Amino acid sequence: MNTRFASRMAQVKPSAIRELLQYGADPSIIAFGGGYPDASLFPIEQLNHVFEASILQNGSESLQYGLSTGLPRLRAQIADRMRGDNVECSANNVLILQGGQQGLDLVGKLLIDKGDTILTEDPTFLGALIAFAPFEPKYITVPMDEEGIQIDALERTLEAHGRIKFLYTVPDFQNPTGVTMTLARRKRLIELANKYDFIILEDSPYRETRYEGEHVPPIKSLDTEGRVLFLGSFSKILAPGLRLGWMVASEELIEQLGLLKLAADTQTSTLNMSAVSLYLDTYSIDQHIEKIKTLYHHKRDVMLNAIKASFPEEVIFTIPGGGMFTWLTLPEGVDSQRFMLDHALPEAKVTYVPGATFFPLAPRHNHARISFATQSDDNIRKGMSALGSCLKRSLQKTTVTSVI
Amino acid sequence: MNTRFASRMAQVKPSAIRELLQYGADPSIIAFGGGYPDASLFPIEQLNHVFEASILQNGSESLQYGLSTGLPRLRAQIADRMRGDNVECSANNVLILQGGQQGLDLVGKLLIDKGDTILTEDPTFLGALIAFAPFEPKYITVPMDEEGIQIDALERTLEAHGRIKFLYTVPDFQNPTGVTMTLARRKRLIELANKYDFIILEDSPYRETRYEGEHVPPIKSLDTEGRVLFLGSFSKILAPGLRLGWMVASEELIEQLGLLKLAADTQTSTLNMSAVSLYLDTYSIDQHIEKIKTLYHHKRDVMLNAIKASFPEEVIFTIPGGGMFTWLTLPEGVDSQRFMLDHALPEAKVTYVPGATFFPLAPRHNHARISFATQSDDNIRKGMSALGSCLKRSLQKTTVTSVI
Repeated sequence: MNTRFASRMAQVKPSAIRELLQYGADPSIIAFGGGYPDASLFPIEQLNHVFEASILQNGSESLQYGLSTGLPRLRAQIADRMRGDNVECSANNVLILQGGQQGLDLVGKLLIDKGDTILTEDPTFLGALIAFAPFEPKYITVPMDEEGIQIDALERTLEAHGRIKFLYTVPDFQNPTGVTMTLARRKRLIELANKYDFIILEDSPYRETRYEGEHVPPIKSLDTEGRVLFLGSFSKILAPGLRLGWMVASEELIEQLGLLKLAADTQTSTLNMSAVSLYLDTYSIDQHIEKIKTLYHHKRDVMLNAIKASFPEEVIFTIPGGGMFTWLTLPEGVDSQRFMLDHALPEAKVTYVPGATFFPLAPRHNHARISFATQSDDNIRKGMSALGSCLKRSLQKTTVTSVI
Repeated sequence: MNTRFASRMAQVKPSAIRELLQYGADPSIIAFGGGYPDASLFPIEQLNHVFEASILQNGSESLQYGLSTGLPRLRAQIADRMRGDNVECSANNVLILQGGQQGLDLVGKLLIDKGDTILTEDPTFLGALIAFAPFEPKYITVPMDEEGIQIDALERTLEAHGRIKFLYTVPDFQNPTGVTMTLARRKRLIELANKYDFIILEDSPYRETRYEGEHVPPIKSLDTEGRVLFLGSFSKILAPGLRLGWMVASEELIEQLGLLKLAADTQTSTLNMSAVSLYLDTYSIDQHIEKIKTLYHHKRDVMLNAIKASFPEEVIFTIPGGGMFTWLTLPEGVDSQRFMLDHALPEAKVTYVPGATFFPLAPRHNHARISFATQSDDNIRKGMSALGSCLKRSLQKTTVTSVI
């Protein structure tokens, strides 16, 4: 009977991140791999209040079925916030999602026919590759630098390739690199989308966490032809365990994606939508986000200072202005996965996410994604110091070996 | 740009149920269409307690990311309950879902390649047709009678057709007919599945609400070859706004579906899983289910008595032993959708779900699904009495017209 699953099963591959989670159970290991927000930031008392009020005062509605597109009040509140971020929209342009990840699944289901071409940054968010995989797309990738996707390379690719189904980008504090696309590139990206007639899927769960540098408007705010789909999330600004995200797109697309949402899981939890809607009405989420920014800014500094103090010079790292990740570039020839299993884990007792998994086509093996959001200051210092020593020893040996 | 969506959009059709929901806003209309449980049954105080405890005492875990297969404790608790229902399984055989509906989506994604044949009961659950549609299957249907799917007809179909991908069934108090498959037919169904080598998707959200007649074991309990996937739900025994369901299947399938779950929405809400797990540990859900059964039994009787008292004799209805629906068969030639728009809505001020939407291939137009779960006793009596008078007038006219 198993042969029946074989063809589809080839599409379903365990995520490297998921595989690594098992090390989280060992208390002597300091994990920098996961994309978990710092749990000390969860507004426990306030969330308890809004859940209590939603259940006790409004249980017959908040525990019942609702609309598949989401609680109308919450859609309106999100539209308000998006307008504050320069995106013209109303509640009808907002679809409530089971976390931002669900948006990737629904867009894949709506737009990807087997063999269609999707263009991504290189590297890109692993969760998107996992979400698109069942629909069997082909990928074209365009390299990034410190200003985001390389726009000249993108233009040459579009000229050479012709029609693509959509371009997927994480423009703010990208997972995995921490890099933000500049405004100039966003403008050129929209021009190219209009010229070559493609859709842009803008996935931006970290955008509200900017703690350094200038605000850059969303790509969606530059969109004049309804061709940008924006994905947002409460996971990094409230709590991921609530599973609440949203999409902003044209009314036509929201209607279609709403039907796919109905097909996929009927709707997001009415209770969780009601509670978060009440939270937004009762408290200032912006004040709460200020706390998140302050802490992540501090933790980023602790990590980057520890890296500067202890890593060998050959190791390059990005300096994110928001979000949770820095991206390491080890010398060519060093395989970060091999290095973790042979050295980082047994000698330094740290984990990270080896970078190869984030490249859709041609894995580059000398990268690593490191999160500074989850661990304490002491653990960040201890872990980076140990990893630095370990890297120095190992790179020295490699050099010696290569000289011999 | 819109042409790009055209082919896939043909797969996404508004659900008749969803269209009807708009009438729910008119307070003078008595709606028998929705599949909403009676909100007075939601255990408000108890749910408030377990949410409060999950947030205040365990917020750093219950508001954080967790495992995509679901909270381990909840998987074990569901396995316990399933073993109590004669299904051999452990926590590793259980996948937590965003409501039972998500199981339909994930199974569709895993198993259906475009053009694959799926066999269903005729009529069948509309939500399944909506979930499978994006994967573009073909359907074969087998008629039902008061004992469930007609097993001789099924065998002839299998002989004639050969290989199918899977058979989809709602064996307990089926949505829409209210019919339960007999044990004898379940046994023959398993024999046929073994002989013709197909998978059975057993979707049973109402099974724990039996208020009359003898318990019939799940098809999954008769499965000796790991070919039955069982779908369960907390929507009808706790509250649908929590969005919690589960699948029981072989460990191999759960592993694969767990990866598709990760791709689809990362995971179900950690908070909702934690709270329901605590509910199961703290309270007796079986005692709570007794209350649900008592109320639905009573409401079914109120409805069937009202139907008997006021409907014309030509209208046939099913007598469900559990669940929320009865299924009307109007005389041949009466179109239930037309009748609702022309008579039931303007004259009797009631809505139901016209039956045509539940037939995957050849709609039969003289059926209607009526729910007795949501409305008060008075509304049930009032609505059925008005609908009965309206049917009598209309059927009389039809007869006169046809005689002339």
